[in-house]
Amino acid sequence: MASSLIRGKHLLSPAGSDGSAGSTGSAGPNAANGAATVLYDAAVYQVDGVIRDVGPYATLKAQYQPDAELGGLDYAILPGLVNSHHHGRGVSTLQMGTCDDCLELWILAGWGRRPYDYYLMTLYTALNMLESGTTTVMYNHPQTAAATLKEDVDAVLRGFLDAGMRVAFSSYFRNQNRVVYGDDREFLSGLPADLATGVGRYLAVSDMTDDDYFAFFAETYRQYHNHPSGKIRVLLSPSNVQWNSDDFLLRAKEQAARYQTGIHIHLVESSYQKDYGLRAWGKTPVEHLQDLEFLGPELSCAHAVWLTDRDIELLAGAGATVCHNASSNLRLKNGIAPVNPMLAGGVNVAMGTDSTAINDDDDLLQEMRLVSKLHRQPGIDAPAITAAQVLALATANAAAPTGFAGEIGVLEPGRRADLVLLRLDGLEYPYLEPDLPPLEAILGRAKARDVATVIVDGEILLQDGAHRQVNKADVGRELREQLSRPLEPETLETRRMAQRLAPYVQQFYRSHPPAGGAPHYVFNSRT
Amino acid sequence: MASSLIRGKHLLSPAGSDGSAGSTGSAGPNAANGAATVLYDAAVYQVDGVIRDVGPYATLKAQYQPDAELGGLDYAILPGLVNSHHHGRGVSTLQMGTCDDCLELWILAGWGRRPYDYYLMTLYTALNMLESGTTTVMYNHPQTAAATLKEDVDAVLRGFLDAGMRVAFSSYFRNQNRVVYGDDREFLSGLPADLATGVGRYLAVSDMTDDDYFAFFAETYRQYHNHPSGKIRVLLSPSNVQWNSDDFLLRAKEQAARYQTGIHIHLVESSYQKDYGLRAWGKTPVEHLQDLEFLGPELSCAHAVWLTDRDIELLAGAGATVCHNASSNLRLKNGIAPVNPMLAGGVNVAMGTDSTAINDDDDLLQEMRLVSKLHRQPGIDAPAITAAQVLALATANAAAPTGFAGEIGVLEPGRRADLVLLRLDGLEYPYLEPDLPPLEAILGRAKARDVATVIVDGEILLQDGAHRQVNKADVGRELREQLSRPLEPETLETRRMAQRLAPYVQQFYRSHPPAGGAPHYVFNSRT
Repeated sequence: MASSLIRGKHLLSPAGSDGSAGSTGSAGPNAANGAATVLYDAAVYQVDGVIRDVGPYATLKAQYQPDAELGGLDYAILPGLVNSHHHGRGVSTLQMGTCDDCLELWILAGWGRRPYDYYLMTLYTALNMLESGTTTVMYNHPQTAAATLKEDVDAVLRGFLDAGMRVAFSSYFRNQNRVVYGDDREFLSGLPADLATGVGRYLAVSDMTDDDYFAFFAETYRQYHNHPSGKIRVLLSPSNVQWNSDDFLLRAKEQAARYQTGIHIHLVESSYQKDYGLRAWGKTPVEHLQDLEFLGPELSCAHAVWLTDRDIELLAGAGATVCHNASSNLRLKNGIAPVNPMLAGGVNVAMGTDSTAINDDDDLLQEMRLVSKLHRQPGIDAPAITAAQVLALATANAAAPTGFAGEIGVLEPGRRADLVLLRLDGLEYPYLEPDLPPLEAILGRAKARDVATVIVDGEILLQDGAHRQVNKADVGRELREQLSRPLEPETLETRRMAQRLAPYVQQFYRSHPPAGGAPHYVFNSRT
Repeated sequence: MASSLIRGKHLLSPAGSDGSAGSTGSAGPNAANGAATVLYDAAVYQVDGVIRDVGPYATLKAQYQPDAELGGLDYAILPGLVNSHHHGRGVSTLQMGTCDDCLELWILAGWGRRPYDYYLMTLYTALNMLESGTTTVMYNHPQTAAATLKEDVDAVLRGFLDAGMRVAFSSYFRNQNRVVYGDDREFLSGLPADLATGVGRYLAVSDMTDDDYFAFFAETYRQYHNHPSGKIRVLLSPSNVQWNSDDFLLRAKEQAARYQTGIHIHLVESSYQKDYGLRAWGKTPVEHLQDLEFLGPELSCAHAVWLTDRDIELLAGAGATVCHNASSNLRLKNGIAPVNPMLAGGVNVAMGTDSTAINDDDDLLQEMRLVSKLHRQPGIDAPAITAAQVLALATANAAAPTGFAGEIGVLEPGRRADLVLLRLDGLEYPYLEPDLPPLEAILGRAKARDVATVIVDGEILLQDGAHRQVNKADVGRELREQLSRPLEPETLETRRMAQRLAPYVQQFYRSHPPAGGAPHYVFNSRT
């Protein structure tokens, strides 16, 4: 359709870039501080995928002649949600047989995981995400075999394009410390010779030089960043501070400037990663990045659980984004990121599911709820994240590092028409006090099953909960068939090798116990 | 039906009281330590509501001639879940217009909440709980108007009976410190005279003498404890240490011994409650209860967030139960109960939703998942609650303080046939690695929508997700009609009074800031 008028009983959005009228919620000049626009009986008018107007339904109805009208007083309108950290595993690591564990052991267990078809997996993942109202994802590709990386990435992006989803793509790269947070050669030298040989062979499969990586990035960027769909941005991705040499980090920073694109990294996900910094440089990883002049507004950092007060100041000062992954951080025994101090300190905080959401299903609505409950510090005057802040984390703030900043995440004229119609009957059943703020009601009670219509670029991708472009059952059936095949001998061999390696890895971390400090959050007390 | 054979691809239960064969999971002699029975292609044979046999399907099929056969290889069988702390608010406090807040202010805001029909509300709540597999609830009745308490309680119990749910009933009582955690008269004397008068009048409505309470308990016990349905137990309930005089606590203890029943209290839900103990007695509330010789195996304590190491030892030594309410503790800004130290210390830990579950819907499966994620302390060797432990928290451990101990919570011969058939197709979609332990798969991925059949006393209450005994739509419609009526002037007046009172209450707690100590859990670090 060319134009449509989309009506809702409530329209909820982070406040517009002009701090427009209708703003409520906690005070603050921008979305990061959690101001929200909440309108009653409102509508969005979009033409050719661009929002032209937002305002009272009656006014817009009188003013425009849309080709179609959607929604109504049984719905709320939200911006399409933005999942700011994801690895595309719609069939989850748990489904693939890897139980949750401490991050470092969980990564190792993943070495022997069943391989999969990147196209089908991505398509399936994107359909799942659309079902809970996610329209844009920051997808971070794992360092797959060098020989097939290009075709893997093509398959991934074909999957997102076929689903119709918007994607900020990056492919992560590690060029050091790939077995433990310490020198590979030194660590391998402590292993039985045949195990060391096996591990070396395993790592060699995904070996690339730094030059190879940047050439691969340039090629991916050229091919996709300005893809005619307008739905892809290509970012750089050093995997994490301990996994990349300073030289590589600096080259990534240079390339980001040259291509005017973003950098997506993992950062102090576990306390062992923070501890690596203290061992390697006598300072935190964030302080090290500050010394390198690596920090900047083009940088988004996934996890960032083990940030010190000083780290938070540095990230805020640099205008960097933190992508909070509440479920993942709990599941992989990494802790709880200090989101309240980050928000208070002015960090742009986004959120994502990291393919390990609490219900193992990439449901960003559920993740928003977890975030809204988890960051409620005990006591009458202790900080508690607000509903408007949580909405911003999953929309405007998350949009910032995607390469679609200013184009998505807020419902206001000029932005892309990415939005969600949420049925209200479920969350209002059997009764809802009319004076309850709608944002509280939705954040407190809405579920993925209430997501009725999902629109990207003005195009309906999900209607009445059903996909319009793709037959999901076919995708699921094909995935199931492929995944049910017997494991290849080399996968079984890698699995056995990883199991044999695990005690050595465990021993490494046991011999590097991170020092504790005063926590940001105190949830209980021993004395 | 007289007898039935219920088949599942997996049968999951806390290990039987005999530590029976088939036990897996972490080592330990009893369910509290998290041993689980996991059987493949197994069945439960029940006759007249009592489990006669549990074992391989083929064996039981050959041995018995049941009147009916249920389930199959598309299902898992679990014991009916036990929600160990609840106030019966199926239309939640949020739906009634009260936003989550710090416990003490949230309680105050509740003074002005819309009243409701106890029968309809209880029936609706019970139907909701059955939908997520809960078959038994520890229901704690609020201190409603003294003039109507008896009829309110009759209505509540009629609601549970009509739903077919098993209930451990208690009605809580407060005889001091009812406005803040300090003397009522003293606190009221600091208020403007008209406000103090209004508050006094409000409190008087639910005033009862201690004698009245015990007479009311005795009457309720006589009428319901041995109700012909066999589904009701009646417990005593001092509301909380700061809300009850020592004399009342001791009389409750005596009465519990006399009637051979349990005591259900709230305990150190907030740090302000712990702080009250330090102010009042120079010791923690648990130490005070120990001094009173109040602690014992008949005692179950809801929340227990602010337990010290010593408190945990005392509760474990006494054989008391802690009812963990993870969502409620987060929502009401109370913190995270030290469940891992409690389990390690031998406390019998149960769990419940407290009518304030994470999704505001009393979904105990979702709550089990939250518990399983929340208690994963950072680091390779730090404690993380196991799947088998979480199962025990929601079944065997929770059964202990209900008055149905030994009768429910474990699938073994001689216990009541309370169980759940969970469809596996959703959580296995599109693929699930066959060697993933079924308990990990279910705890990680099952949802309330997968609850197909719920059986209490061998009787099917929910089949294919639909209620067999009650038309839920009728209940919902009637509730909606009643709740949609204009608020009574006295409710509006109470609401205004509570709003006026709030700053004084706030000021009281601000002037009593609890001292911090070393936390049990360290999820992040400022330095």
